[in-house]
Amino acid sequence: MKTSAGRFFEDYRIGEVMAHAVPRTVSGGERALYHALYPARGAIHSSDEFARACGLPAAPVDDLIAFHLVFGKTVPDISLNAVANLGYAEGRWLAPVWPGNTLRAESTVIGLKENSNGKSGVVWVRTRGLNQHGVAVLEYVRWVMVRKNRATPAPDPVVPALKPAVPAAELVVPGGLDFSRYDFALAGEPHRWADYQVGEKIDHVDGVTVEEAEHMLATRLWQNTAKVHFDATFREDGRRLIYGGHVISLARALSFNGLANAQMMVALNGGAHANPCFAGDTVRAWSEVLDKAATPAPGVGALRLRLVAVKQGAEPFALRDEGGRYRPEVLLDLDYWALVPV
Amino acid sequence: MKTSAGRFFEDYRIGEVMAHAVPRTVSGGERALYHALYPARGAIHSSDEFARACGLPAAPVDDLIAFHLVFGKTVPDISLNAVANLGYAEGRWLAPVWPGNTLRAESTVIGLKENSNGKSGVVWVRTRGLNQHGVAVLEYVRWVMVRKNRATPAPDPVVPALKPAVPAAELVVPGGLDFSRYDFALAGEPHRWADYQVGEKIDHVDGVTVEEAEHMLATRLWQNTAKVHFDATFREDGRRLIYGGHVISLARALSFNGLANAQMMVALNGGAHANPCFAGDTVRAWSEVLDKAATPAPGVGALRLRLVAVKQGAEPFALRDEGGRYRPEVLLDLDYWALVPV
Amino acid sequence: MKTSAGRFFEDYRIGEVMAHAVPRTVSGGERALYHALYPARGAIHSSDEFARACGLPAAPVDDLIAFHLVFGKTVPDISLNAVANLGYAEGRWLAPVWPGNTLRAESTVIGLKENSNGKSGVVWVRTRGLNQHGVAVLEYVRWVMVRKNRATPAPDPVVPALKPAVPAAELVVPGGLDFSRYDFALAGEPHRWADYQVGEKIDHVDGVTVEEAEHMLATRLWQNTAKVHFDATFREDGRRLIYGGHVISLARALSFNGLANAQMMVALNGGAHANPCFAGDTVRAWSEVLDKAATPAPGVGALRLRLVAVKQGAEPFALRDEGGRYRPEVLLDLDYWALVPV
Repeated sequence: MKTSAGRFFEDYRIGEVMAHAVPRTVSGGERALYHALYPARGAIHSSDEFARACGLPAAPVDDLIAFHLVFGKTVPDISLNAVANLGYAEGRWLAPVWPGNTLRAESTVIGLKENSNGKSGVVWVRTRGLNQHGVAVLEYVRWVMVRKNRATPAPDPVVPALKPAVPAAELVVPGGLDFSRYDFALAGEPHRWADYQVGEKIDHVDGVTVEEAEHMLATRLWQNTAKVHFDATFREDGRRLIYGGHVISLARALSFNGLANAQMMVALNGGAHANPCFAGDTVRAWSEVLDKAATPAPGVGALRLRLVAVKQGAEPFALRDEGGRYRPEVLLDLDYWALVPV
Repeated sequence: MKTSAGRFFEDYRIGEVMAHAVPRTVSGGERALYHALYPARGAIHSSDEFARACGLPAAPVDDLIAFHLVFGKTVPDISLNAVANLGYAEGRWLAPVWPGNTLRAESTVIGLKENSNGKSGVVWVRTRGLNQHGVAVLEYVRWVMVRKNRATPAPDPVVPALKPAVPAAELVVPGGLDFSRYDFALAGEPHRWADYQVGEKIDHVDGVTVEEAEHMLATRLWQNTAKVHFDATFREDGRRLIYGGHVISLARALSFNGLANAQMMVALNGGAHANPCFAGDTVRAWSEVLDKAATPAPGVGALRLRLVAVKQGAEPFALRDEGGRYRPEVLLDLDYWALVPV
Repeated sequence: MKTSAGRFFEDYRIGEVMAHAVPRTVSGGERALYHALYPARGAIHSSDEFARACGLPAAPVDDLIAFHLVFGKTVPDISLNAVANLGYAEGRWLAPVWPGNTLRAESTVIGLKENSNGKSGVVWVRTRGLNQHGVAVLEYVRWVMVRKNRATPAPDPVVPALKPAVPAAELVVPGGLDFSRYDFALAGEPHRWADYQVGEKIDHVDGVTVEEAEHMLATRLWQNTAKVHFDATFREDGRRLIYGGHVISLARALSFNGLANAQMMVALNGGAHANPCFAGDTVRAWSEVLDKAATPAPGVGALRLRLVAVKQGAEPFALRDEGGRYRPEVLLDLDYWALVPV
């Protein structure tokens, strides 16, 4: 048998390290496609000149390009037989990715817990993305529910203790970043770190109706091979499930309108793909300021933000129903730290 | 309120200069996407070698990439509340744009005229695109009808005097351009400047049926944020209006078949988006030679061309009905100067 | 008449050489788009670092990018009036193509045979793709059935003698290629040349449902201008025929799952587009090992593979019906040589 059926729950061992296949070199091509696929307008990722004025050697590629590429590499080893993508934690961007960099990924199994039905279990992995110098550019914990394929004894449950959010002191500011001469006019909005209040909510106004071709182009670009995104014969209802990361990028790009200066993502505290997204849905986004912190870099502050993606029919800022469940129009509930000029 | 609702008619002042947000660095990625989105085959923009044989250091990106990027930047400041895009004039390409260049844009308000209904008015702006050296690469005048939001006194009307066409003497030929060793075989057609007659009309034969995903990829690539292109819930009929510039690029690319040697656009004399274009329309194009002129560059002549885009059902070369209105199948009527080997 | 109606059967002469129009410079943009359009994961084409570890200076662009670009250039001169694309033979990749290379194409007419109905004939051409140094990067023979436009005497029939497959001794291994330190884990699968047996068949499992926007983006990217791929009003049934090369690339990319180490295509022995493919079809692929051969390069073996693309409803490994015709679900039957670590 030359093809792989993917791993099942019983195939994982605590402490095991998986070197994921197919390294990938990025170029201006991936950047251009990112701008074609998402309404991304963040100035640091759009302009070499703006990035240089902020102390960087050139514009890095969007932080989510690094995330999607690393995530995509893990799919064949982690989520091919996943029933559900349950959560993220302790995600940090550790170094920018530049055109010409080559990324690879590796994951360590840090948690295993079989479900009481004996048919599936939860696998926790800590994934790192590395560039061609072996420098980590990204790390995050992700946990998924994976099917069992054979009747094996349940392993001793190991549930990792995960931080509810990355502490501000652990955020990694890209080397050289300096917002002390930040050009708010070129960046698109006048709002600085001091203008945002904890608890403030922002409706990002704009909406995008999603097409099949778009989400498939995106998901393939990240070499994510999960069948359910591409094969209309896979689900009984003939619909292709949109990669959750596509919704993350859409929502993050839409959040420009109100958060134009939330320039760089530096931590992923958590995230839930609350409901599936399908072609034809019109995606909108709103944000809530969860926390604020200083950083040691000149002129650079940090905002902890909740980013919520919703689809048509959503009411303003509505997240959960009375029973505490996500409302059916909520697609994504993401918790991240971003760097903002003070 | 962190988000912008855009400017209304009463927010503009004569002489005001707007520095538009989000500079953008272009690369081979934007060029490749242009070739994927439009059937563009012009040799100077396709091949570094062909461009070098014509005296340029390498292939610049398509002239319309510069136009779309500059136009896109103006949208949040000028046309977010526009009722209609009324016209273009005095457009000139002033310098080629190369991969690695960073473009920004600024506009000066040169005309204001409130409509008699007191609910809207016309705003004229002169927009310039600048590269990272501050060199202007493009300039054009555009006027739009913009809604009023508050009951303010009408400003004194100022209607700029605009040239009906850019005089041939004011065309800017890219530095170094030399068509004296032009390779007609490699370029795709034998027709030279001398072969085109004023009044001649050319049916460009080919048609392209447009998909939603395509026009949205294109419009996002230019960071054009107008809701009506992306959000199927925005219009009552549930249709997404295709960015007029997408039709310009489609028609210009289709015109290769008959105008393969009309290599570079150097002036935009005028243009009307005669009727809206929607996904499912099959776009065709025809051209009319309006004028001819010499240029000081070796082997380089100029043709003034009318480029008309039509959709299914159009009759050959039909433009206006008996009442002088554009026929319903006409999408675009564009008037431009192009450089052609003599 | 400025536009070209294309050539008809009576317009070809044995020995005639056609220099095809519009050279094209490739960049990281074309590579990124290739990854967005196809589920391509071959490590040598994905990663500069992996390619370097295999003795190459950097990652070349996918071998099929070279094929499609060269093929696209021939369309206006060869297949604009083609009734059918009948076959390929004696195809060889002769040198890798790198970002920054400029490709052009030329074809020599090597065979002509009028059909007995006097209304069409078969034209054989040998096409070569050349880079900016004049070095051939690709060559192949292709034959098409072309309509006659005028009542001319039938030419003396010339039917070239074509090899049923490129002999292994004539395969060109890219200079420097060395698989002796090949990293199977990074490449994605452990299977080496020695693990494949002649006669072995591999079901590549995954499927992709094709959208109109995708195949048009791809076909335009290769500057292929055949109307039938773009214009929904061209065929009576209102459907756009998908460029056969799009199916080749889809199937080749899908074959990663089971043939991840079949890294480089070096010969195209033959191929048939068995049935048309349309948007909405879900494409799958299977392969059969037809032959094995050694090469002089260190650690590098060659596999001759049949690559079959099928659509929904296909039975496993079914190719022809009892009458010897391709079954209706078979889209492509391709015969090629690939380089594999021994």
